[in-house]
Amino acid sequence: MNDPIEITLAKNKKPKRDPNQLTFGTYFTDHMFMMDYTPENGWHQPRIVPYAPITLDPAAVVFHYGQAVFEGMKAYRTKDDRVLLFRPEKNMKRINLSNERLSIPPVDEAFLVEAIKKLVTIEKDWVPKEPGTSLYIRPFIIGTEPYLGVHPSRTYMFMVILCPVGAYYPEGINPVKIYVESKYVRAVNGGTGHTKTSGNYAASFKAQEEAQRQGCAQVLWLDGVEKAYVEEVGSMNVFFKINGEVVTPALNGSILAGVTRDSVIQLLKNWGIPVTERKISMEEVYQAHAAGTLEEAFGTGTAAVISPIGGLIWKDTEMTINEGKAGALSMKLYDTITGVQNGEIDDPFGWTVEVK
Amino acid sequence: MNDPIEITLAKNKKPKRDPNQLTFGTYFTDHMFMMDYTPENGWHQPRIVPYAPITLDPAAVVFHYGQAVFEGMKAYRTKDDRVLLFRPEKNMKRINLSNERLSIPPVDEAFLVEAIKKLVTIEKDWVPKEPGTSLYIRPFIIGTEPYLGVHPSRTYMFMVILCPVGAYYPEGINPVKIYVESKYVRAVNGGTGHTKTSGNYAASFKAQEEAQRQGCAQVLWLDGVEKAYVEEVGSMNVFFKINGEVVTPALNGSILAGVTRDSVIQLLKNWGIPVTERKISMEEVYQAHAAGTLEEAFGTGTAAVISPIGGLIWKDTEMTINEGKAGALSMKLYDTITGVQNGEIDDPFGWTVEVK
Repeated sequence: MNDPIEITLAKNKKPKRDPNQLTFGTYFTDHMFMMDYTPENGWHQPRIVPYAPITLDPAAVVFHYGQAVFEGMKAYRTKDDRVLLFRPEKNMKRINLSNERLSIPPVDEAFLVEAIKKLVTIEKDWVPKEPGTSLYIRPFIIGTEPYLGVHPSRTYMFMVILCPVGAYYPEGINPVKIYVESKYVRAVNGGTGHTKTSGNYAASFKAQEEAQRQGCAQVLWLDGVEKAYVEEVGSMNVFFKINGEVVTPALNGSILAGVTRDSVIQLLKNWGIPVTERKISMEEVYQAHAAGTLEEAFGTGTAAVISPIGGLIWKDTEMTINEGKAGALSMKLYDTITGVQNGEIDDPFGWTVEVK
Repeated sequence: MNDPIEITLAKNKKPKRDPNQLTFGTYFTDHMFMMDYTPENGWHQPRIVPYAPITLDPAAVVFHYGQAVFEGMKAYRTKDDRVLLFRPEKNMKRINLSNERLSIPPVDEAFLVEAIKKLVTIEKDWVPKEPGTSLYIRPFIIGTEPYLGVHPSRTYMFMVILCPVGAYYPEGINPVKIYVESKYVRAVNGGTGHTKTSGNYAASFKAQEEAQRQGCAQVLWLDGVEKAYVEEVGSMNVFFKINGEVVTPALNGSILAGVTRDSVIQLLKNWGIPVTERKISMEEVYQAHAAGTLEEAFGTGTAAVISPIGGLIWKDTEMTINEGKAGALSMKLYDTITGVQNGEIDDPFGWTVEVK
């Protein structure tokens, strides 16, 4: 694991794209990080190489049995041209949590934070400068053994690829409408909902399509047992501000432990705003809305940071929240977290890590 | 879709392996079938080419969001050297059911049955002759678009790879011990349990490891809601013979509709043996065992055909079924289905399709 990282630089550099035209996840930088796992050598041969296609046997485990986990994080450029990561150790800790559930051998978290820093340093020119932009970092692991037995792969590939991302809110924060999904289920206790494994996402496409048909941006998932309790929104965690108290679903085994979620909870506690992690049913949300005490709702995630929710469609009911506008607390959280990420305000929790 | 299948034959043929030493899923034949999907051209360019690695962008959807489905079926050689497929149209129908749930564009079922027949014809020498052996056929589809947005892929690859398989029971039928899983969950209604999508299998590895630690061959999955009702066994459906009646869990949305399962039900009805598809709890199985009315239990699947269950471990209880021996009905079903597959007995249901 502590092999030095071998670096092979790309001979030809790709042109950078117009930072105002960056779409998420389509255009990648010049280099990527890779390392391999075999039972004999463990994780070995860490290397930074030119971004290029990978070649696998058609029988590779990832194609058949979905043994794959990933993470998502970002690098931000400050006004004084430093590059910051946001709590990268949390992502590497979580990839090991995913690994454990998916029978993938653990990785060395500290080593990989260093590897990501080294890769981002090489790609520093790819971190865009414009407000709201960032360099998205996608670490992932796939099972590569060419073996059709239903069994964990004996070999793996760990990779990190990078893509510049435009501002999530190019025209200012815009609250979204969310569709509460009552038919499809994302996850259940005893399953893989608390991990970032590939199969969770393919399973969500169908509901996402339905949400879009209903004119909504994303799905709100309910629990898989009673289809009554709120779990998470699309690829975000969710918070409700009810009568002055902020409530978010507790990490019950089927909810992803978001890094932004954790940051929001820490900030709220620090600010002395009551925040509770507990079960919350859609009925409770509905009743709060009816009583006029549902003051705000928002999603949290790496992509949007804070995504204010302006409306919820649940069965035949449409609820408008805070007149469809971003709430004051949502905005304060957004400004604070993005401010820390961009190095514009103090970082009292030590969340940022500079890439040098 | 109705493009002719272009054929490129391998210049070098691989050596065949000793049919008594064939392990499942590790050694593939000389050729594979491929076709591609784009929104503009639909499924196109069907082709049979030399078996070879495939090259994909590291951002391909299959690596990140697990958009992948597959099927499993077999070709059998008869004593008079014909090659038979067993109900291939059922597998192609099911891959479209999986496609629908996973937001993958549907395939032309009849065309693909013909494509598989053509591929198996070219690989006819790879269908082993020895009793119990077969050629395993693995059709699968993967999302290939290099795009990290959480969204169905716009491009796909459909492939079929083949591997010769040794006898499942080289030393005669041997009942297995099964571990009833009470912690991990395979699937829940509203999820993907009724499909053959890759993520279902990665999610099952952890429980399978636990079962092996308990000295068991496979896991018996319970429902994800109450963890009380029987769903399926490892990669098989499950049947119980209780007091003369055969019971199997009904297809409730989280259970795979096995081809062998369907064949067993048809045979039992044809033989006048009562068979019921309904909910069955582990408590009911336990009580039947205690009362001495649990006469047989067996799994059904393409690999084993019939896998008699000699024992069940549930919580702290170990139940021995039929003194740990294969039951008469299990054996009759095994002999009948394998007899039809091998062309040794009549095929009154028209289940076999000859590859010419």
